[in-house]
Amino acid sequence: MTHHARDAHGVRRSGDSGDSAVSYVVHPIGYVASPLVSRDMAPKQGDEGAPDAWLVFDEGVRAGLRDLRPGAEVLLLTWLDRASRDVLAVRPRDDPARPLTGVFSTRSPDRPNPVGLHRVSIVSIDGTRVRVRDLEALDGTPIVDVKPVLDSVGDR
Amino acid sequence: MTHHARDAHGVRRSGDSGDSAVSYVVHPIGYVASPLVSRDMAPKQGDEGAPDAWLVFDEGVRAGLRDLRPGAEVLLLTWLDRASRDVLAVRPRDDPARPLTGVFSTRSPDRPNPVGLHRVSIVSIDGTRVRVRDLEALDGTPIVDVKPVLDSVGDR
Repeated sequence: MTHHARDAHGVRRSGDSGDSAVSYVVHPIGYVASPLVSRDMAPKQGDEGAPDAWLVFDEGVRAGLRDLRPGAEVLLLTWLDRASRDVLAVRPRDDPARPLTGVFSTRSPDRPNPVGLHRVSIVSIDGTRVRVRDLEALDGTPIVDVKPVLDSVGDR
Repeated sequence: MTHHARDAHGVRRSGDSGDSAVSYVVHPIGYVASPLVSRDMAPKQGDEGAPDAWLVFDEGVRAGLRDLRPGAEVLLLTWLDRASRDVLAVRPRDDPARPLTGVFSTRSPDRPNPVGLHRVSIVSIDGTRVRVRDLEALDGTPIVDVKPVLDSVGDR
């Protein structure tokens, strides 16, 4: 496969030896409201003692929420706005005994594009506010997207 | 939980009734090189007959890739740059017999922030080029992130 200097939409891209030249803008669709207000308080993963939280969606995306139901498991994508974007290797779980590991082999929030991925269950829905179980994201974290879990072809 | 007018970093946010005012920039870290060049050709999910593809990473993120290994299953996050961002409801799998469904209950690429989520296996690695199995993303799709699959606490 050769690399195309321009993609199908005519957007300029760099060659293999350089960095990708195009960037994209994430417009958050809401935010997390949670008792967790600092990274020190947050568990490493949602099923390690994270509290329930509210997903507070913008009015403008209400039509996209209409088929969410209590009891459903969903994947929540967030923008980890307090992460550091210039980190490429970390010690997993902040454990000094563990070797430095490339960030793409870890779930560290610190990474070039700090998109958080969280599997949560919906507890209840009140208009554009969705209550979820076991979310380790911090209070105020912007919401990027919500997707259904695909566990089997039958779910699609 | 009350809503904060400003978060811990002093970034302005809108109130509950408005839309989130802050935006974030995704800087792609590479792109997909694939025989799939149009949405018509692409399967709906990677395990439905998608081809193998190369993930071509930018030189600047090489240090983040160092612990990826052939045989590993990873989650690939992409920016679905040919998607429509103003769509909030779709008919799943483009099937006219299915009811209009809110996009956050579907895996449609058309959604406000078109981040693609793909579970792929690594076949081989050649420097900053990573060969993966069963990827339904189109040729030229920008790469946002790579994360390990977390199937059990032991994997973390």
